[in-house]
This record gives sequence, structure tokens and C-alpha cells, in this order.
Amino acid sequence: MPVMNPAVDTQQRILDSARELIHSRSYADVGVAAICRHAGVKKGSFYYFFSSKRDLVLAVLDSYYLQMKRNLLDVAFSPGLPPLQRLQRFAQLLYEVQKSNVASTGYLFGCPFGNLAVELSTQDEPIRLKVAEIFSRLRTDFRRILDEAVKTGDLEGIDTEATAAAMLAYFEGVMMMAKTQNDPEVLHQLLPGIAAIRIYPADALL
Amino acid sequence: MPVMNPAVDTQQRILDSARELIHSRSYADVGVAAICRHAGVKKGSFYYFFSSKRDLVLAVLDSYYLQMKRNLLDVAFSPGLPPLQRLQRFAQLLYEVQKSNVASTGYLFGCPFGNLAVELSTQDEPIRLKVAEIFSRLRTDFRRILDEAVKTGDLEGIDTEATAAAMLAYFEGVMMMAKTQNDPEVLHQLLPGIAAIRIYPADALL
Repeated sequence: MPVMNPAVDTQQRILDSARELIHSRSYADVGVAAICRHAGVKKGSFYYFFSSKRDLVLAVLDSYYLQMKRNLLDVAFSPGLPPLQRLQRFAQLLYEVQKSNVASTGYLFGCPFGNLAVELSTQDEPIRLKVAEIFSRLRTDFRRILDEAVKTGDLEGIDTEATAAAMLAYFEGVMMMAKTQNDPEVLHQLLPGIAAIRIYPADALL
Repeated sequence: MPVMNPAVDTQQRILDSARELIHSRSYADVGVAAICRHAGVKKGSFYYFFSSKRDLVLAVLDSYYLQMKRNLLDVAFSPGLPPLQRLQRFAQLLYEVQKSNVASTGYLFGCPFGNLAVELSTQDEPIRLKVAEIFSRLRTDFRRILDEAVKTGDLEGIDTEATAAAMLAYFEGVMMMAKTQNDPEVLHQLLPGIAAIRIYPADALL
């Protein structure tokens, strides 16, 4: 029989409510009162676990990252697949998740990291730095895949670090377009373009 | 001697204040009171010209578009340049504008269209549709350039409509990364990657 820990349960309910409300709306649009109401907890409990809404959102970002790692990265980046197919698999899973969200809510919420980065980077330095750190981890994952593709001879001559950054930017940009058109088919049409992205050491603006 | 029209002048001051405040912060973070204070006008004047903050932001989006057309599109997309060099010129100008903003304010504000799309697409349908329309105009500009590059033999076999959409997504994604890292050099490093982006008619997810 599972043993319930009421404190852990309350903290988790606050986190889950914040994740859901903020992802579907925005940071500014969701107040502590709305989060408490959705979680069924009193404001006092909220401030027992989190010193501020920012503090909660930093925990929410960690929790989004863990979920993405479990449901997306660990599945798509399995070493069983050839390196470049892992990126295609990642794209395919992103599309399926967003498509299923639109089917159940009517809205394409987009990337929880990109959403918070765009809304808050000029206003909240700790949140900006936390998203920057998560993006940096993703770039490292992508770079490892590209380095492996260079080793297997599937790619050559590219700057793998810059190309990894370019690929992450492309994923985020396509997600923004899909959100703006509220249409997951934008992901289906554009994400295959990830395969063509290359940055070479000599590339430069005019 | 220039003739001043006080009504036009007041309306313009409200628009200019809203552009500046919202671009540097966010839609939710800037209220009508702050816009009036910044513009030096009374709330009554605000509601004489704009029925709501949303109504003002729709006008702000038109005004951002006109400014981008004049300062960026008309300069970069001059028919005097070979088609693919126009896209590189566009990238170069984007970088210079953001770099100069960071030098004067300390912050990289990002794309005013992408910012509002990400913050509001799930919450405000008229604003989402307005940004979607502006992105659609940009895609048409890009597609014309790509069609011309196909005619001159610089590109072949691509789906120009999908590739134009992919390029716009890439610009927006790179801008998001630069904003998250608060560093215009991200644009300098990644924007040359625009040249490699291609979507072919047969491209598909797994």
C-alpha cells in the first residue's frame, strides 16, 4: 500500500498546477492565488514551500526539464538509433506531443522553456539564467550526436558546437511559428528541415 | 514651419511609449497607467484614441511592421543585390540593430512580433492573428527571393514556400536564443546558418 506524505503531496500539487497554468497561459497571467485555487491549497501552504512565484517557477523549470528528459530525450536519443535519426525521432516526438495537446485543449502551448525565456529574459535574471542553462544542456546533447555523426562519416566539416546551437534555435523557432498559427502541422511541415542545418567553421555574416 | 496637430501628436506619443515599454518588458508587465505616464498623457486621452490595451497593441504591431519594412526589408531586399545575398544582408542588419540596442540598454529585447506571439497566442486571438498575418507577409517576401534564386539557378529542387517558412522560423529561433543568452554575438554566430536551410518536396518526419 503506498504511503502518502501530505507535505510532498501538497508541494507536488502546487508544482503541477503551476506547470499546467503557466504553460497554457503565461507567467504574468497566472498569480499565486490562481495556483493555490487550482491546487486546492491555502496561500500559507504555498509560502511554506516557495518563497515567491519566481522561486516556484525555478522549480517548475527543473520539473519540465526532468519530464522532457524522461519522455523525449531518453527515448529519442537512445544509442540504438543511428545519430542523425535520433534528431528526426526527437522532431517526431515533439510533433506528436504538441498535436495531442492541441487535440485535448484547442491550443498549441509551445515550448515551456522558450515561452518563459521570451516573456521574462529582460525582466527576471534568475529565470533567464535557468532557461539559458537548460538550453545549454540541450545543445550539449545535440553536439554529442553531431560529433558521433562526424565519427561515423554521416557529416563532415561542420562546426558541431555551432550547428548544435543552430538546430536548437530551429526547433524553438518552428515551435514559435506553430504556436502563432495554432497548428501542429507547422511542425510536421518544417521540422524535417532540421536535417539540412549546418554551420561551417568559415561561415560569417557579410 | 511644421504645423503641429496636437491630437496626432498625443496618439503618436502613446504609440511610441507602448512600443518602447512593451518591447523592453512584456505585454502583461506594462499597464495603461504606465504607458500614459511615460507618454505624459491623461488616461482620458488614452481612451479617446484606443478602446483597450489590446486595441493599442494591434496598432503597435502595425507600427513595428512599418518600421521593419522601412529600416530592414526595403534596405535588405533591394533588387540590386543577388537574391541569396539579400537574406544575408537581412541577417546582418538584424544583428546590427540588436547589438546597438544591447549597447544602449544592456538588454537584447528580441523580435517584437515573436515576443507578443509567444506571450499571447493562447490568450488573445486578435493579437495572435495579427502576428500570424505579419509572419505570413514575411514568408511571402522570403518566398519571392527564393523563387528568384531558383530562376537564376542559385537554388534548385527546393519547396520555396516551405523553405521560406523554415527560414523565418530560424530567424525567430536564433533571436530567442540571443535574448535568452542576452548576447548579440549569438546572432553573429548562428545567422549565417540561414544559407544552409532547405526543405525539399519529399521531406517528411519518420
